[in-house]
Amino acid sequence: MREELHRIPAGSAVAKHVPSGLSVKVVNTSGSQVVDCWAFSSSDVKEFMSMEHTRVETERVSPAVGDSLYSNRRRPVLTVLQDTSPGIHDTTLAACDVYRYERLGATGYHANCTDNLIAAMRDQGIRLDSVPCPFNLWENAAVAPDRRQVIAPPVSRPGDLIVLRAELDLIVVLSACPQDMAPTNGPDATPQDVHFAIL
Amino acid sequence: MREELHRIPAGSAVAKHVPSGLSVKVVNTSGSQVVDCWAFSSSDVKEFMSMEHTRVETERVSPAVGDSLYSNRRRPVLTVLQDTSPGIHDTTLAACDVYRYERLGATGYHANCTDNLIAAMRDQGIRLDSVPCPFNLWENAAVAPDRRQVIAPPVSRPGDLIVLRAELDLIVVLSACPQDMAPTNGPDATPQDVHFAIL
Repeated sequence: MREELHRIPAGSAVAKHVPSGLSVKVVNTSGSQVVDCWAFSSSDVKEFMSMEHTRVETERVSPAVGDSLYSNRRRPVLTVLQDTSPGIHDTTLAACDVYRYERLGATGYHANCTDNLIAAMRDQGIRLDSVPCPFNLWENAAVAPDRRQVIAPPVSRPGDLIVLRAELDLIVVLSACPQDMAPTNGPDATPQDVHFAIL
Repeated sequence: MREELHRIPAGSAVAKHVPSGLSVKVVNTSGSQVVDCWAFSSSDVKEFMSMEHTRVETERVSPAVGDSLYSNRRRPVLTVLQDTSPGIHDTTLAACDVYRYERLGATGYHANCTDNLIAAMRDQGIRLDSVPCPFNLWENAAVAPDRRQVIAPPVSRPGDLIVLRAELDLIVVLSACPQDMAPTNGPDATPQDVHFAIL
């Protein structure tokens, strides 16, 4: 199948309606770009993909191929159909926000995934009451045996992709993380474009 | 100091105002009871203790003595002053809810920490827009090197206690988890009373 690939410019986000049964393919074009992913039920955005509910239902900190991610009402939201990367994704870390960049020493406004989400949903006519923890595609936050976490550069490779099937009618938001003050997006901390398709 | 200990009956919750600088002491009276803990800024409940922000700021999946837990605006909310238990607490798992018990096979309504939170806040005149992931005192959800998680019985002992200092004026909610269909609260899955004091 030749599907149309759409570009998400470095540091920005898109929101797309994805009907139940269709899938979203996200391509890590550069190999080192983290993509924050959210999903909301189109019929009631108070039901959304929840990392803390997903961890209970899957008994994993990171979903694998065949796993579903669950909503805050414990219904399957997205199912991982394919993942060509080493499968290192994060479910534990908050999206970056103005407070994160302030603490990292930013002066003035810094683009961030939280504001990207809010703006992308507003463009769909939706005001969010709260910001769920994202599914951070390719973010490499290992949990050590001593329960410490370290955010290391992604281990994904150029062109690695993940395919996520919608189990409900969804609005999916993808934010190519603008982090350039920590090695989230690679050791040179340079945000890159990513691409996606609806299949 | 002889402070007054208050009882939280098994399976129920309390909400208490805790001014900045005071502390809440939670006692695991039986040794095997998990307590779901939330904290909201009294002046604006849209600012609340957030596990996903705490993990970024502390670089740990479980806070240790001396660590603060952070809000969704990345301000310190509670600081762990003392912990006589082995320090195994959880920040990764959603509160139990009606959907959890349905999936475990409950027929009819089952008390749960999510509804406990909502009711305790409603008793304070506050309607919550969203349910944050709780700080699950003594919940033993180990993260294995393969990223699998298993909820095992607590390793705490009768009388173990934790002291948490308020860094903002807070409403703190404590729910003695009613889970009796999984070994969250010990191998015999019997919820127990816990006790707390404001110091």
